[in-house]
Amino acid sequence: MAATIGEVVRNKQVLLRDCVTGFPKESDMVVVENPLKLEVPEGSNEILLKNLYLSCDPYMRNRMGKNGTFTPGSPIIGYGVAKVLESGHPDYKKGDLVWGITGWEEYSLVSSTQILFKIEHTDVPLSYYTGILGMPGMTAYAGFYEVGSPKKGENVFVSAASGAVGQLVGQFAKLMGCHVVGSAGSKDKVDLLKNKFGFDDAFNYKEEQDLNAALKRYFPDGIDIYFENVGGKTLDAVLLNMRPHGRIPVCGMISQYNLDQPEGVTNLTHLIYKRITMRGFTVTDFYHLYTKFLDLVLPHIRAGKIVYVEDIAEGLENGPAALVGLFSGRNVGKQVLLVARE
Amino acid sequence: MAATIGEVVRNKQVLLRDCVTGFPKESDMVVVENPLKLEVPEGSNEILLKNLYLSCDPYMRNRMGKNGTFTPGSPIIGYGVAKVLESGHPDYKKGDLVWGITGWEEYSLVSSTQILFKIEHTDVPLSYYTGILGMPGMTAYAGFYEVGSPKKGENVFVSAASGAVGQLVGQFAKLMGCHVVGSAGSKDKVDLLKNKFGFDDAFNYKEEQDLNAALKRYFPDGIDIYFENVGGKTLDAVLLNMRPHGRIPVCGMISQYNLDQPEGVTNLTHLIYKRITMRGFTVTDFYHLYTKFLDLVLPHIRAGKIVYVEDIAEGLENGPAALVGLFSGRNVGKQVLLVARE
Repeated sequence: MAATIGEVVRNKQVLLRDCVTGFPKESDMVVVENPLKLEVPEGSNEILLKNLYLSCDPYMRNRMGKNGTFTPGSPIIGYGVAKVLESGHPDYKKGDLVWGITGWEEYSLVSSTQILFKIEHTDVPLSYYTGILGMPGMTAYAGFYEVGSPKKGENVFVSAASGAVGQLVGQFAKLMGCHVVGSAGSKDKVDLLKNKFGFDDAFNYKEEQDLNAALKRYFPDGIDIYFENVGGKTLDAVLLNMRPHGRIPVCGMISQYNLDQPEGVTNLTHLIYKRITMRGFTVTDFYHLYTKFLDLVLPHIRAGKIVYVEDIAEGLENGPAALVGLFSGRNVGKQVLLVARE
Repeated sequence: MAATIGEVVRNKQVLLRDCVTGFPKESDMVVVENPLKLEVPEGSNEILLKNLYLSCDPYMRNRMGKNGTFTPGSPIIGYGVAKVLESGHPDYKKGDLVWGITGWEEYSLVSSTQILFKIEHTDVPLSYYTGILGMPGMTAYAGFYEVGSPKKGENVFVSAASGAVGQLVGQFAKLMGCHVVGSAGSKDKVDLLKNKFGFDDAFNYKEEQDLNAALKRYFPDGIDIYFENVGGKTLDAVLLNMRPHGRIPVCGMISQYNLDQPEGVTNLTHLIYKRITMRGFTVTDFYHLYTKFLDLVLPHIRAGKIVYVEDIAEGLENGPAALVGLFSGRNVGKQVLLVARE
């Protein structure tokens, strides 16, 4: 049922109910319907989108907190894939497919000044633009290649390795000729790492009493690059196992986001002893490399040399559960929310 | 009284008694005399040194611990300034003045393969080659310029700012046109920072109940470069006050070296939010820049534009107290031990 410009629709939305403390709960959000006239206001250069896929990402937790940028009573904001219904901006036209920042709702009126990429390649699944071909993919690319400065033969450790970013970091590391081991939180995820993503080895961190001993077992010669997604105890154990001149691209610290009092990291003196570089980064600083990234990754996807696992929930009603599930590791692979088919 | 080659002397030495746990104590070391024949063994390419100045440096604490490289029953090893008495190596000859790694004793037979620089400029105090013109000077230079990548106008914070390295970092920062604030542990040291080394401001961290609040007061716009000498609580407070794309050269973490259980650093997620680079470094990786460093710093010393404060103890007997004093901050400026005048 195609929407008609000028029509007033009941726009289903996922609103933040109140600022989140501790682990986010489904009840921190509420699904409502509000009337919306489908139009770009006269003279505005905004863009009216029909949202197709929404992306559930760990960084959103911080936006939901009391120092976050989400507004209680307003829709959750995040990355998504959408179709342009009407455009007040010359760079976009009706029918264009785009990915970028949108609202958790059926229809969004977005500013053209925020992150919005036109989708040029549609021979791959559209949902990939919330993952491997979108923000998480660019995050893996920038963090591994630009921040990690990998060299052939190096030892790479990836935490949250089956997630939206980690699964790709591992595959990039293999393409580069590195030895790569991943950690994840279930047997299924460990199996994916070893059998689908081609990690050299993988382990379930929940089954390890002593992370330091586990890392010594998997990396008897130490770790050159640790792609940091989790923080806390894992980081502390990794610091004991880094090699001289090692690098730690700090992408995320999901284990810490819901804690009132974050865990203390005690082994930072190893940064000195081993001359380690630990660098936090944000993908938005690297979006100028997006075309270069696509040139690398698209041929590998088409050739089946890079694969990607998604966990797709369906319907805005199921959005809160999908988002909350990230923090207990319920998702297997990239968590996506299907809002509407094209 | 000049020593004669071939003579057997009573060589006074400071030995490590046993591996150190917790804060080092004077009684962890013992001063003894052992007979030594002043000669380079036939066919050896070693170098026989008469030690003039020895350097007391915080990193030595780790060498004294149970995982350290110092051997109980053997002399403390460290940087020093010495005169060559006899040389089996063609690069050094009798009468040369050198700085580098030597023993805590009157006379040392050292290998030519370890760190040893010939002293070419003697119009400055020889003791400077344990400090501003030696390892600590190179540490300040490498950490500030090479690791810190400073830009004019940036905000620089230095901890342990009146120490061997810190006092120089602050002066480099002023030469670069930065705004620099230092922290130290006494009123006298704070006065030195403000009145002698030209820091824009300085504070006594022991008088601050809330380091975060203190840093907000001194850096209302945040910190671009934190030159890390202390670790622990200071680092945690700094992370809350860093500016986007800030840099943290990690030179040392003296507050942690004597703790059985290091303090936990809890604010590392700020590495991500602010895209901070934290890089541990070791001066030995930068010694190839020593000539370049001298070219920069010597003219400034001669012109009185860079000054240096030393705290000189006299006599090997007083070595243990001088070394131990570093960890309670008893020294004001670079702690040196005078063993013999040239």
